[in-house]
Amino acid sequence: MRDTPLLDTVHSPADLRGLGDDALSILADELRAETINVVSKTGGHLGAGLGVVELTVAIHAVFDTPRDKLIWDVSHQSYPHKILTGRRGQMQTLRQQGGLSGFTKRSESEFDPFGTGHSSTSISAGLGFAVARDLADAKGDVIAVIGDGAMSGGMAFEAMNNAGHLGKRLVVILNDNDMSISPPVGAMSSYLARLYSSGTWLKSAQDAPDEMLEQVSYHGTLFEALGFTYVGPIDGHDMGQLLGVLRTVRDHAEGPVLIHTITQKGKGYGPAERAADKGHATAKFDVATGTQEKALPNAPSYTSVFSQALIEEAARDDKIVAVTAAMEEGTGLKAFAARFPNRCFDVGIAEQHAVTFCAGMAAAGLKPFCTIYSTFLQRGYDQVVHDVAIQGLPVRFAIDRAGLVGADGATHAGAFDVAYLANLPGMVVMAAADEAELVDMVATAAAYDDGPIAFRYPRGEATGTELPEGGSPLQIGKGRIIRDGTQVAILSFGTRLQEVQAACELLANDGITPTVADARFAKPLDRDLILELVAAHDALITIEEGAVGGFGSHVAQLLSQEGVFDRGFRFRSMVLPDTFIDHATPQQMYEQAGLTARDIADKVAGLLK
Amino acid sequence: MRDTPLLDTVHSPADLRGLGDDALSILADELRAETINVVSKTGGHLGAGLGVVELTVAIHAVFDTPRDKLIWDVSHQSYPHKILTGRRGQMQTLRQQGGLSGFTKRSESEFDPFGTGHSSTSISAGLGFAVARDLADAKGDVIAVIGDGAMSGGMAFEAMNNAGHLGKRLVVILNDNDMSISPPVGAMSSYLARLYSSGTWLKSAQDAPDEMLEQVSYHGTLFEALGFTYVGPIDGHDMGQLLGVLRTVRDHAEGPVLIHTITQKGKGYGPAERAADKGHATAKFDVATGTQEKALPNAPSYTSVFSQALIEEAARDDKIVAVTAAMEEGTGLKAFAARFPNRCFDVGIAEQHAVTFCAGMAAAGLKPFCTIYSTFLQRGYDQVVHDVAIQGLPVRFAIDRAGLVGADGATHAGAFDVAYLANLPGMVVMAAADEAELVDMVATAAAYDDGPIAFRYPRGEATGTELPEGGSPLQIGKGRIIRDGTQVAILSFGTRLQEVQAACELLANDGITPTVADARFAKPLDRDLILELVAAHDALITIEEGAVGGFGSHVAQLLSQEGVFDRGFRFRSMVLPDTFIDHATPQQMYEQAGLTARDIADKVAGLLK
Repeated sequence: MRDTPLLDTVHSPADLRGLGDDALSILADELRAETINVVSKTGGHLGAGLGVVELTVAIHAVFDTPRDKLIWDVSHQSYPHKILTGRRGQMQTLRQQGGLSGFTKRSESEFDPFGTGHSSTSISAGLGFAVARDLADAKGDVIAVIGDGAMSGGMAFEAMNNAGHLGKRLVVILNDNDMSISPPVGAMSSYLARLYSSGTWLKSAQDAPDEMLEQVSYHGTLFEALGFTYVGPIDGHDMGQLLGVLRTVRDHAEGPVLIHTITQKGKGYGPAERAADKGHATAKFDVATGTQEKALPNAPSYTSVFSQALIEEAARDDKIVAVTAAMEEGTGLKAFAARFPNRCFDVGIAEQHAVTFCAGMAAAGLKPFCTIYSTFLQRGYDQVVHDVAIQGLPVRFAIDRAGLVGADGATHAGAFDVAYLANLPGMVVMAAADEAELVDMVATAAAYDDGPIAFRYPRGEATGTELPEGGSPLQIGKGRIIRDGTQVAILSFGTRLQEVQAACELLANDGITPTVADARFAKPLDRDLILELVAAHDALITIEEGAVGGFGSHVAQLLSQEGVFDRGFRFRSMVLPDTFIDHATPQQMYEQAGLTARDIADKVAGLLK
Repeated sequence: MRDTPLLDTVHSPADLRGLGDDALSILADELRAETINVVSKTGGHLGAGLGVVELTVAIHAVFDTPRDKLIWDVSHQSYPHKILTGRRGQMQTLRQQGGLSGFTKRSESEFDPFGTGHSSTSISAGLGFAVARDLADAKGDVIAVIGDGAMSGGMAFEAMNNAGHLGKRLVVILNDNDMSISPPVGAMSSYLARLYSSGTWLKSAQDAPDEMLEQVSYHGTLFEALGFTYVGPIDGHDMGQLLGVLRTVRDHAEGPVLIHTITQKGKGYGPAERAADKGHATAKFDVATGTQEKALPNAPSYTSVFSQALIEEAARDDKIVAVTAAMEEGTGLKAFAARFPNRCFDVGIAEQHAVTFCAGMAAAGLKPFCTIYSTFLQRGYDQVVHDVAIQGLPVRFAIDRAGLVGADGATHAGAFDVAYLANLPGMVVMAAADEAELVDMVATAAAYDDGPIAFRYPRGEATGTELPEGGSPLQIGKGRIIRDGTQVAILSFGTRLQEVQAACELLANDGITPTVADARFAKPLDRDLILELVAAHDALITIEEGAVGGFGSHVAQLLSQEGVFDRGFRFRSMVLPDTFIDHATPQQMYEQAGLTARDIADKVAGLLK
């Protein structure tokens, strides 16, 4: 491990402000080494942080944080920032229960004025701070650092449009590394490449700041069309240039300014620089070799099972197309794209467009799979309601990362999709209990052409269940009995089924043998199955990996309408608790949520008392 | 009423294709007269349609609709299109139950390939059609017509970014009338104004099409940065120029093209041209004078009560600011803006940004009211979850148009907000039972600084309840008893309370006297009140103007957790039905929904049998 003598003297950004420019360069080198060292021990996001080491040092040296508000878009690039802002000693707790978040977080530090996690929010939030500052006649700068990938998200454009109109002083730093998680796509990305490949790079302009800031207004860039002063492009790894430009902007700029910095994701660490994803996210690794420590999986991931199943359906049906919003790798569509390059569309970080683009393709007779994480589908919710559901268009939603997701924490949890989808008229909503069922649900979605259909499945390793030869479409709105029992029935929606089975083993010791059923559908509900369970048992428990308002609420509505409660019936709905659950392992999170086998067994035993 | 001899011969767009250019100009004049005539009898959206009369005729004359797909963004400008596409005879049924929709609708005509209503969706949908066409090796153009206001919506940018990248042939017509519903705001709007005020207008280029299409690529506009060929600006009321440009684009363009047309909202009808909103939406009117037929209101609208209450709070507390997404008029913020111009922000059609901008202001210590229609808050859902709720920031959501809204139909219904908000940890969710309570809820939201808080209220006239002198903050999570009764309790959330009261009058004839309570809060629930109602009655009915998953589901979850159902208890939850309800009067819609006084009375009587 490399020595970090200068970094060891820095306990707060204030300590940077007494250092000369050369010392700041040395500090940046040490900060890079420390970032590599930390992530090698904890795992996490590496490449993005390495790309902004110099930027992080320069911003904190030039601006007066925390009075000046620094907002990192997405903030997986914030590890160097955390190290500099008093959290170095806790970095080994990163992304672990009770430890530091992998993202910025207001509750963690006064240097994190706004928490992020999802993309493209920083300019909107920054403008909020700028407006508040001016209303209070206060001093202070607001700096939003946003990647070129995040810039393709529509809300970044909405925010720039508003910022350019209001003309408030606001510094946006476009961190252009030509990478989001995957290489970015879209016309904007090509445009940025043209901006810095065709133009001359900006020289440091400490001696002629006015000229620098005035000159650029003739560039005629897209950003200037939106009312920003454009400065750049500049080399984001050249500390001298960074410091010069930031000081000039700090001292002379008026209104909104966009500084276009060119950086390299994974910069300064060979294994990251050479990796296809530039070291985006990593397990613990050996610093010398870059070799990652990986547990041998016991089973394929749900994502890979989905990927393979979709490819098989698409091989049979050339109307099937797939769409991802900048998550080709994470959603498993990479293999699909390799096999069917003309039928796979990565639209960039643009979930709203992704959904309505699918609606358009469905209206034209294709069978689009909108492949997306639960938490990111929230971005396209209006489009799901307005463009898909109201028109009854057969868009297939493949919802990955349903339920609690572990180290990424609350911002990435998939807690609300069942509630926000299952009350949309005409929507079919499924959850896979295991990977074999997931294969059938892909087949079901492929075969179903009467309207929108969604199926959800969690992050991580599947159960090891044997996969069918090929998927078979399920009967819409029909669940299945998993095991016959007495007294109490447990109706599971999704992968808690494994915990339910484990709960039954626990209960067997006490002679309690619940009936277990796999609902498969939250909409339409399997009315017959549910009422049969009610008729044959004293109690019914539903369980799901989602918040109240979803599957259990629909079952409750059915039972009350049917008068089941009138004559007395024990019904309980186990859902995620009414709290945002911070990063931890998924198992720890489900313990906190009260949705483990033990919790289920206790619920059953309690009900039978 | 003006004669329309030429229009009388047009039964389908195919009939336009045999007409000469001069005849098309005459036809446009007749179409304008007919549009005015129709809307004078039905009311509805007038100004937007009048602005695109020539464009409508030209598109249908030049392109081969319905093979070519024409998508109108928002589509309140589609009345002339409807008249030309076989629906002239039904125009008198516009926006009435069973009649034509005020928007395009797939089920209504093959000339409506994609239904709209919300803004900024047309390019995404159009790109879907273009991709499907190319995958099938089929012929045909796709034309999306989008206003300059809608262009500020982030999803339009996302779609252009993707379209420019894919390079598919796609025609986007920017209908730049410098008006959305209100005058548009934002840097984009200023930019467009500069584009057409500084440049020379394009001449019709039938003789040199290649030159026209090539020349423009040197403009260096924002649209070209996104990979579009930019054509314009052109005069959208000059039929010769329109026809020439559209034919040139049809015959010679490759890849995505943006045609920038300048039009005038309300064009050709004096009273609309002179109106501040350019005749955006109107009641029935007298064609000669423009005088609108208006029923005398019995009570102020909920919107105006909100507006006044917010002004009063803001006069006392200078930290209160208000944000609208291009709905200053509709949300009642116009008066607020007049009184506090520095504290009111119209961010344009940009709901995602609106929410996170509020989050930023809240993080900086202001008290932002995000004032928005229920249906449009769907656009900012992820921002509510991720930027507001997870961070616990005290953003106040003033949710107008909650419940069924009448003539605007399903696309504008506010059916889902309670479900998608009340399961967010830390969110407070209220609904006003009448305008006096709304005043108190504004005061409650102003006073509450511990986290996010939302209150909802419907479109239209309030009840005539006497307003308090000033608002008084309500106790968080506490409802109230409205009338004491026996046997059955009705717990109302929101303005169905009036119907509940009327139901009690109906029931009194049969000697049934329900207890009535006003829940006020869906979150946190008034646990004590609910359990007291349960203890003192044989049955409990909840009622709300929202879909399942909302208030009633939260009550059901409480009752099941408390074991209320174990011993037998009659519980029913009256919610919106599982169907999208088409345009009609609100009263007709609530009849269809089964939420009238009669329905409530029947439910009570049925339960007591």
